[in-house]
Amino acid sequence: MGILKGNAVVFTQGGPTAVINASWVGVVMGLKNVPQVEGIYGSIHGIDGILNEEFVDLNAQSDTVLMAVSRTPATALLSTRRKPDDEDNRKMLEVFKKHNIRYVFGAGGNDTSESLDIINDAARISGYELRMFHVAKTVDNDLMENDHTPGYASAARYVANAFRGVDMDNKCFGGIYLGVCMGRHAGFLTAAAALGRTTPDSGPHLVYVPEKPFDVELFCQDVEAIYSRSGRCVIAVSEGIEDARGVSVLQRLSSDTLEADSHGNVQLSGTGALADALVDKLKSYFRDKGVTRKLRARGDTLGYIQRSFPDQSSVDYEETLGLGKFAARKALEGDMDGSVAIQRVSDDPYEIEYKLVPLKSVAGKTRHLPDHFINAKGNNVTEAFMKWGRPLIGDLTEFGMLDMTKKIS
Amino acid sequence: MGILKGNAVVFTQGGPTAVINASWVGVVMGLKNVPQVEGIYGSIHGIDGILNEEFVDLNAQSDTVLMAVSRTPATALLSTRRKPDDEDNRKMLEVFKKHNIRYVFGAGGNDTSESLDIINDAARISGYELRMFHVAKTVDNDLMENDHTPGYASAARYVANAFRGVDMDNKCFGGIYLGVCMGRHAGFLTAAAALGRTTPDSGPHLVYVPEKPFDVELFCQDVEAIYSRSGRCVIAVSEGIEDARGVSVLQRLSSDTLEADSHGNVQLSGTGALADALVDKLKSYFRDKGVTRKLRARGDTLGYIQRSFPDQSSVDYEETLGLGKFAARKALEGDMDGSVAIQRVSDDPYEIEYKLVPLKSVAGKTRHLPDHFINAKGNNVTEAFMKWGRPLIGDLTEFGMLDMTKKIS
Repeated sequence: MGILKGNAVVFTQGGPTAVINASWVGVVMGLKNVPQVEGIYGSIHGIDGILNEEFVDLNAQSDTVLMAVSRTPATALLSTRRKPDDEDNRKMLEVFKKHNIRYVFGAGGNDTSESLDIINDAARISGYELRMFHVAKTVDNDLMENDHTPGYASAARYVANAFRGVDMDNKCFGGIYLGVCMGRHAGFLTAAAALGRTTPDSGPHLVYVPEKPFDVELFCQDVEAIYSRSGRCVIAVSEGIEDARGVSVLQRLSSDTLEADSHGNVQLSGTGALADALVDKLKSYFRDKGVTRKLRARGDTLGYIQRSFPDQSSVDYEETLGLGKFAARKALEGDMDGSVAIQRVSDDPYEIEYKLVPLKSVAGKTRHLPDHFINAKGNNVTEAFMKWGRPLIGDLTEFGMLDMTKKIS
Repeated sequence: MGILKGNAVVFTQGGPTAVINASWVGVVMGLKNVPQVEGIYGSIHGIDGILNEEFVDLNAQSDTVLMAVSRTPATALLSTRRKPDDEDNRKMLEVFKKHNIRYVFGAGGNDTSESLDIINDAARISGYELRMFHVAKTVDNDLMENDHTPGYASAARYVANAFRGVDMDNKCFGGIYLGVCMGRHAGFLTAAAALGRTTPDSGPHLVYVPEKPFDVELFCQDVEAIYSRSGRCVIAVSEGIEDARGVSVLQRLSSDTLEADSHGNVQLSGTGALADALVDKLKSYFRDKGVTRKLRARGDTLGYIQRSFPDQSSVDYEETLGLGKFAARKALEGDMDGSVAIQRVSDDPYEIEYKLVPLKSVAGKTRHLPDHFINAKGNNVTEAFMKWGRPLIGDLTEFGMLDMTKKIS
């Protein structure tokens, strides 16, 4: 394998995360001042920037600026949800040839991995030599071959912090609090609500993920059992929960028009409908059962803030920057293509390694929360999940607790 | 005035904040090891704990525990929304006499100040000597006599951080993002969405507060003007916005059943209805006007996380702890009663002072966002608001920006 000389392009696709800048900045740090790489192009708005030849010069940005950008949520290169068709692929290959672009790095989810694989095949057929790398990214953590994906741990940190704060709040008055978390098909982010628990009675007391069928009646009974015991209940629910027949609970409980993006995904974020519908259901259930005269029940939808809150997990940040550098190194060492992934070596002490896996092993597939992370009843996470998740989210502020046994009578 | 010897009680009322523990811990720190104060009682669940004689012994908690508690969101003494009636007041006075409680400190909003004033009057009439102090608290910042209230700055910090993250996210794809913030009658917390702006094109681009009548048609036109120019628009909206006739926009746009608490307040938090209704309205407006084929518009409701997120503003924390200590000092120095307030000495350098004001000057009144903090159109905050608010929220993580003028063509 000879040395391939040319320009490089980096781009970002799909929903941003709190650390997605770190992934492409890592790539750029790995490519800077390397003899075989001349220009480093930042494509604006994902593959749209390639199609429109809209590139920012990343060699012209100082290291100080790049490092500050790597600390900033969402992607400074902007994004797109475009899924390239045959015409797009042909056009991109033309642009690569025109600009002598030989090194391509796309950060994104499994949609992006699939796109890169298709372009890569087209390049190979046309005899144009390319290095084509996918850098894993998604808050949903639903990519195959990855123990966890860049972006997940920061979103998980936010969700854990949100729930541990709200759990303290819920204690003050009692009642029911329900929070709906992102995660279309994978329950990893919803499960992260449990990672901030501080004491045995800490919420969330119930966790519902899309991997298990959701039965509205059983859900009400679960809540009743906990509420009857302690006068309160905190619940984490995934936006993507479905009934046993695979119909989304949102679709069943809501008559609102639903939107689909160009990948055929129904819009589940950016609406409070599911939380409101579940809270209404709980209120009517408790009223009909005569459990309480008037139930204090509140529902929040955590929404877009989950993926963009400016508080990176330190672990996520360091790993993501490192993964970007790893992708650059692999490309320079002569690897042709692949997806760079984070794999776990051990839980305790926490240790990971980077690995290059085939693009096709990630493309278009969805990874789910494994069975041993979900309890038998399907209404909570297991200790195995806690062990897996805790090292990812970084340090949380310690909570202080009064000794309530010291009473004055 | 002779020295009044006896026990002290602290309690917390109403919706918790991220620093409400700091206010009563400050009081306790100020009362500990003082000869005239014997027992320090923590009443559980606000005045309910007095009525039920349910007290935790705060002298028995170590300083280490108390300081850790002061760093913990929501109230470790738990809360209530009970507004005492004549019978309650009579009963509380009995409990005070029975336990020789002479020093009373209640942290809460204007409802609490009003309750304390009523009990204080009853004590005076019955000839029982009391020291009765209100420690200001509310994320809404709607208390008279206060430049800002403990709890506001931490909630404002969260809202500012949430919007600056979401604004970066919104840039990636363009489109419209709308976030609904807490604030029943006062727009301070919604206005705080602007405090995280980093560049001239940073969102929120529009800010709607309850102090100005909200016209749905004008709102749509405001959004259209910004969206047409830049392809995106980030909007902060208060949950309490009303039309020119004083009808809440939520009530007009939603047919859902609304709840009222025992103070007659309609439930505006804990439902995503307003955000969803406004987003639906924008979509139909843009469709009818033919502005865009398909508008990407998303709405979030920031919900309970605003008041409980475990990330205190350092300014809020220090001031709140200090305000509690100030209340204790005033009581020990022989002041009879009052509400302790934070007043501003200067904006630059930022300087505040604590002041004791009459209970009645705070009781049952609502402070509003002053006119000079709102622009003439009623759709944004002014530079005066930014100057006022910026010192309160503590340091934010610096965002890095690429130099987008450095293109490759």
